[in-house]
Amino acid sequence: MSKLAVVAFGGNALLRSGQKGTCQEQMQNVADTCQSLLPFLKQGYNLVIGHGNGPQVGNVLLQNEAGSQMFGLPAMPMDVCGAETQGQIGYMIEMGLEKVMVKENIDRNVVTFVTQVLVDKDDPMFKNPTKPVGPYYSEEEAEAYAKETGAIYKEDPKGKGWRKVVASPKPIDIQNIKLVKRLAEEGNIVITVGGGGIPVILKDGVHVGVEAVIDKDLASAMTAIKIGADEFYILTDVPKVYINFRKENEKALDTITVAEAQLYLDAGHFTEGSMAPKIRAAILFVKETGHEAIITEATKLGDPTCGTRIVK
Amino acid sequence: MSKLAVVAFGGNALLRSGQKGTCQEQMQNVADTCQSLLPFLKQGYNLVIGHGNGPQVGNVLLQNEAGSQMFGLPAMPMDVCGAETQGQIGYMIEMGLEKVMVKENIDRNVVTFVTQVLVDKDDPMFKNPTKPVGPYYSEEEAEAYAKETGAIYKEDPKGKGWRKVVASPKPIDIQNIKLVKRLAEEGNIVITVGGGGIPVILKDGVHVGVEAVIDKDLASAMTAIKIGADEFYILTDVPKVYINFRKENEKALDTITVAEAQLYLDAGHFTEGSMAPKIRAAILFVKETGHEAIITEATKLGDPTCGTRIVK
Repeated sequence: MSKLAVVAFGGNALLRSGQKGTCQEQMQNVADTCQSLLPFLKQGYNLVIGHGNGPQVGNVLLQNEAGSQMFGLPAMPMDVCGAETQGQIGYMIEMGLEKVMVKENIDRNVVTFVTQVLVDKDDPMFKNPTKPVGPYYSEEEAEAYAKETGAIYKEDPKGKGWRKVVASPKPIDIQNIKLVKRLAEEGNIVITVGGGGIPVILKDGVHVGVEAVIDKDLASAMTAIKIGADEFYILTDVPKVYINFRKENEKALDTITVAEAQLYLDAGHFTEGSMAPKIRAAILFVKETGHEAIITEATKLGDPTCGTRIVK
Repeated sequence: MSKLAVVAFGGNALLRSGQKGTCQEQMQNVADTCQSLLPFLKQGYNLVIGHGNGPQVGNVLLQNEAGSQMFGLPAMPMDVCGAETQGQIGYMIEMGLEKVMVKENIDRNVVTFVTQVLVDKDDPMFKNPTKPVGPYYSEEEAEAYAKETGAIYKEDPKGKGWRKVVASPKPIDIQNIKLVKRLAEEGNIVITVGGGGIPVILKDGVHVGVEAVIDKDLASAMTAIKIGADEFYILTDVPKVYINFRKENEKALDTITVAEAQLYLDAGHFTEGSMAPKIRAAILFVKETGHEAIITEATKLGDPTCGTRIVK
């Protein structure tokens, strides 16, 4: 049977630093990243793709704010904006994958699922929201909004203004995960948990969207665990994971055990919001499955020595 | 085997006249429409749902314009905006369906596919774009944009300004239609061809998004034909189809043949942009399959005398 891999696309799969984020730029970036998947496609891997949506949902939130101010359009809440970016980015990845496959004469369906991800309404993170989202406001505006909506606003550390902060709760369950597994095992490339998934809680037996951001690497790891993936790849923009990153004694890591990864993480070697969540996601996958997780640059995929391997 | 029906949600399934279109309003409208599907759910119908996106994609286009003016954010083209609304509306319909099903103890998956729909790059409609989209501009602005982008702008008949007009080409093929069929036949409720689908053409063997609007009833009819649906429902906000609508000799139609429908259509009984495309979609489905198409108010679903039946 073909190997089943989950690949989590990082931010720069879609948007690179210095870019404005035009559609053309994003389409090209995605196409490049999809080109990197060619070794997997040639080897007949079954593939599930997860992806982030940070800059995209950021823009959609700003567009909602601008539309509200300029045209009086009702702004959509964050869960709906997240759903929008799943459509947007899923479509872009589909286009990128098709380009590679047509060139290489590979004929596989690509399916994008709109995906809710269940979180615990009592997740402790809801009491300590840290993830800044949406537009910057003045202190007075932020105070007024906070009073009006109950949301929490914090001052940007760089002094750019005040922003809403939302929680980043843990993913518990993934909508339609059995279908994701089956379709992927049949050879369909499935795009799911976009942006970490649309965060929902259970309330009176039904799912309700909440304003939160689920870490996309963690949601992808959860996907990989639940579908029994053989391999889990987290794409990033550096070739390896480093300890003492950007210091004199910086050291690239080829293979580390889960225990070592946890030690380095606890020692503060990895930046929050960047490498740290990737390491946590990798640890989760390896602990649960015993299989390898690989954190790597997209362009190195297919090279058996690529990236940093986290093993049991 | 269970009956397989395609239901096309009309505009007022999501947004009613006089409403501002807040998330809460839309969620409530969708929940009401989904409640109307209960007879189908109780009878064990297999269901595929298509839906429009007119007001939603209109808002997204305006939000893109506002975001560009206020924050300098790159505006996304129409195909990408359409993909966004598929995520947004699909998610809302999922929420609405779940509410009904939980209350009634029905356990079925709901799956939303991001869906491209193929159109012919030589479709004659591309030479005669008629569908107004996006913001209103002054004549000078419209001229400048037309020069810059090659898009066509026309003056609003009510004098509200100038708007871009795009083509409304015919749907030819629907992405992942075999999967839609299979998943629906297994009992999963599948949401697809949102907003008529993301319009794509074939260019050098790959699909490329175009600025166009595919009629959602036609795309839903095409879906119904291709999955071998037994029944095709088009939801609208009037109980029946009428000839001489809103005239003294207005007459509600209970059952008409395809030939009669075509005659009435040719005689101009049905408004373009409203009932006419529904009639065309119904005719297409009935001609191709020999099965009935029903145009009806959502609240009447399940009543065997509901709406207007178009038969062979």
